[in-house]
Amino acid sequence: MQYPKPLARLIGELSKLPGIGTKSAQRLAFHILSMSDEDALSLADSITDAKKNMRFCSICGNLTDSDPCAICSDKTRRRDQICVVESPQDVIAMEKIREYNGLYHVLNGVISPMDGIGPEDLNMRQLIVRLQNSDVKEVIVATNPTMEGEATAMYIARLIKPAGIRVTRIAHGLPVGGDLEYADEVTLLKAVEGRVDM
Amino acid sequence: MQYPKPLARLIGELSKLPGIGTKSAQRLAFHILSMSDEDALSLADSITDAKKNMRFCSICGNLTDSDPCAICSDKTRRRDQICVVESPQDVIAMEKIREYNGLYHVLNGVISPMDGIGPEDLNMRQLIVRLQNSDVKEVIVATNPTMEGEATAMYIARLIKPAGIRVTRIAHGLPVGGDLEYADEVTLLKAVEGRVDM
Repeated sequence: MQYPKPLARLIGELSKLPGIGTKSAQRLAFHILSMSDEDALSLADSITDAKKNMRFCSICGNLTDSDPCAICSDKTRRRDQICVVESPQDVIAMEKIREYNGLYHVLNGVISPMDGIGPEDLNMRQLIVRLQNSDVKEVIVATNPTMEGEATAMYIARLIKPAGIRVTRIAHGLPVGGDLEYADEVTLLKAVEGRVDM
Repeated sequence: MQYPKPLARLIGELSKLPGIGTKSAQRLAFHILSMSDEDALSLADSITDAKKNMRFCSICGNLTDSDPCAICSDKTRRRDQICVVESPQDVIAMEKIREYNGLYHVLNGVISPMDGIGPEDLNMRQLIVRLQNSDVKEVIVATNPTMEGEATAMYIARLIKPAGIRVTRIAHGLPVGGDLEYADEVTLLKAVEGRVDM
């Protein structure tokens, strides 16, 4: 038996989302049909609205509804530190630690030769432009500790260091609450290499 | 740090969906923002469209985009059997076995005193109306094998049997490919009680 067309289309659209298989899409679709008209239309509208009003900050590349973004235009933040991250989600993660008070630069991707993504496909050139004639004294590279993230970090360091700006990388090591016994060797090696005096 | 408003709203709407927590909602929201305008609007439109064009069949209570639904108006189906199920999803499940060729009646719920849901909150009265002056010879009760499903089945049987219509219940037992060792006692008991001659 085939689903009625509008339902089949809804299931199809939902199953395109990441982590949503056919079964989940069916469950979500039936749930949406059981929602009040108001709630369902509000869901649809929130998608259209976000898509229409969210854009990339022309300075840092972060997702924002105003340009420049709230962080770039926040006068209380330090302007001599820029933290380079892969994605807007990483900015959220960094902000959660409530310790970093500098600016950000969002690459919106990572160098990945396997996927054919080079520096020119990222928000990289804008980073160099920002650093010219600026007060930036330190660039903290907070790309993910993956192969691509490391390669991107190396690339950024090689690009920026000659300009005399300090480039740092966030530390690798054991997660707090972690267990030596279950740590992979590379992480443990990095933790030993990065040991600090007590 | 707060999300920009349109993004916060999208995350909020998505996290209202069943099985979607805050983390998943964030991931989905960022994915939606990374989709092409066309794809995102198509997703939003499929929600609005499904909500607008899907309704309950006035005969059987199934979800449909035409009234009566495709099954009720299918002249090739037997009109002397009605299978009573809890939800439109159950109709899909029944149709998948490609064996049942009768009609359906969708209750759109189940009797559940704990949740304050009685027969009058379900598509129950319409079932009685359908059975009057009809050719229906058998009502197959295929509500879920849960406490509520069983109670609903009992209620239906007591309601219909006096009219001289045969009321049957789908069998309980071990799932095909299942394992006696891991079956719960109630299922195993039902399987023994429902044993058939070989």
